[in-house]
Amino acid sequence: MIERIAILGTGLLGTSVGLALRAAGYRGAITGWNRSTEHGQLAQRMGAIDSIADNALEMAHASQVVLLAVPIYATLDFMEKLSPILGSEHLVTDVGSTKRMISETAAKLFNTPERAAFLPGHPMAGKERGGAELGDANLFRGAVWLFTDDPDAKRSPHSAALVKGWREWVAAVGSKTIDLDPSRHDELVAWVSHLPQFTATALSALLESEVGAAPELKDVGGRALREMTRLGASPFSMWRDIAYTNTEAVEHALLALEQRLAHLRENLRTPVLREEFEQANKFRKE
Amino acid sequence: MIERIAILGTGLLGTSVGLALRAAGYRGAITGWNRSTEHGQLAQRMGAIDSIADNALEMAHASQVVLLAVPIYATLDFMEKLSPILGSEHLVTDVGSTKRMISETAAKLFNTPERAAFLPGHPMAGKERGGAELGDANLFRGAVWLFTDDPDAKRSPHSAALVKGWREWVAAVGSKTIDLDPSRHDELVAWVSHLPQFTATALSALLESEVGAAPELKDVGGRALREMTRLGASPFSMWRDIAYTNTEAVEHALLALEQRLAHLRENLRTPVLREEFEQANKFRKE
Repeated sequence: MIERIAILGTGLLGTSVGLALRAAGYRGAITGWNRSTEHGQLAQRMGAIDSIADNALEMAHASQVVLLAVPIYATLDFMEKLSPILGSEHLVTDVGSTKRMISETAAKLFNTPERAAFLPGHPMAGKERGGAELGDANLFRGAVWLFTDDPDAKRSPHSAALVKGWREWVAAVGSKTIDLDPSRHDELVAWVSHLPQFTATALSALLESEVGAAPELKDVGGRALREMTRLGASPFSMWRDIAYTNTEAVEHALLALEQRLAHLRENLRTPVLREEFEQANKFRKE
Repeated sequence: MIERIAILGTGLLGTSVGLALRAAGYRGAITGWNRSTEHGQLAQRMGAIDSIADNALEMAHASQVVLLAVPIYATLDFMEKLSPILGSEHLVTDVGSTKRMISETAAKLFNTPERAAFLPGHPMAGKERGGAELGDANLFRGAVWLFTDDPDAKRSPHSAALVKGWREWVAAVGSKTIDLDPSRHDELVAWVSHLPQFTATALSALLESEVGAAPELKDVGGRALREMTRLGASPFSMWRDIAYTNTEAVEHALLALEQRLAHLRENLRTPVLREEFEQANKFRKE
């Protein structure tokens, strides 16, 4: 029943969603909007969107499902602008990496019988760089797509049906969906996504300070070093909004890692080192 | 001119050296010894060694080049035992991950005109698990093989020629050699090898404590999480001797990372975060 999808933001995720929908057999319309028209045109040439709109809000109004695939603060801005102009025949969903602020905003501005539905979503897929040119129809295959929907949302039957329809397309592009409470989501991703990123950033920045001046020595590290610093290439622009909207949970996770590293450092010659290795081995076993 | 090589220890590295020598065209004898005969037989079936010796010291005496491919403390033990029974017609070399203690021991027990030569070596290649079964003729292709030789070693012409010959075989198996001072070596590998390992161990152990009880949530992290915790699978047995023989440099590197993480944590909402990402980006660019 979904026949008109609007993708706001044709970066890596927006473009990949368009390509993945087509690969999964979606035959309806996909319109696109992007802040930079050039990148929108690239997404169009790649077949992720059929056409580009100049006006994001008009495009959204003409669609059934509106996918916000822009940074978190831009998502919050669009939510403010879309709420008054959309109605019970619309669903808005997103791909933002933190969900507490977005879910709180959704409860204020969406999800009444008269208003559009808002389904907060977060596909756990990405690359260390963004951009339409890296768009990939298989990006979501085997990935987890998290939702932090409000179980008490009072929606029109029409927009409730769109929510169900969108969930089916998410499954069709190969993702496994998990439903979580928004605060639990933000805590969880602080551990399994944000902490690994900030660790790689700190490690890479430190190594640049320590051995960056001797590039021949970077070769010395081999695969282990390359792997542990690959995420060091992640651009700040992708992570700023995450640091701002999940500060407390990220602080908590970083402090816990600092303490764990100190514990290991103080025990390099005691039996505790064996326990730490065995605990780490367990994480990789299951 | 090298026609008889003895490999003491047919784990991942010893087995891979045997296979790589054969692949590079070495036609002389390769004898092997291993603490567990079963793993020695596996290396023999794989073609890494021609025959297995019961007595490691007799085997070493009958060879020209003795490769010690055992953990660091076992290497130091063999150095004590081999020094009195070998002479100026022998070269002993090793693959140990730290070099200061081994180089100090070499200066005491080897490298006089009457004694065997000792060339301390360290191929920067490995896998997160050990064992002959993972032996790989291409393990050293494109890797760096570090040497921490004593430039003032007084060797017999014969053993000096063996040193030159062994360096040629290391190049022949595809490695790039770099010569370093032993203390500088241990500092450098603390940054580019030991720090990434202990970071992955601490991160994996922490995540096991925090989300280990909910295995479905491990899927959530995706590629970034898998990559940052892959080394969490490294066995303690491979790292214990490194922690003991390079304690000070590893402590220094770990403390520096703790401080860098704290710096990042205290600046999640300040312009410093951008600087840290940009510094990390630089490490990955060159």
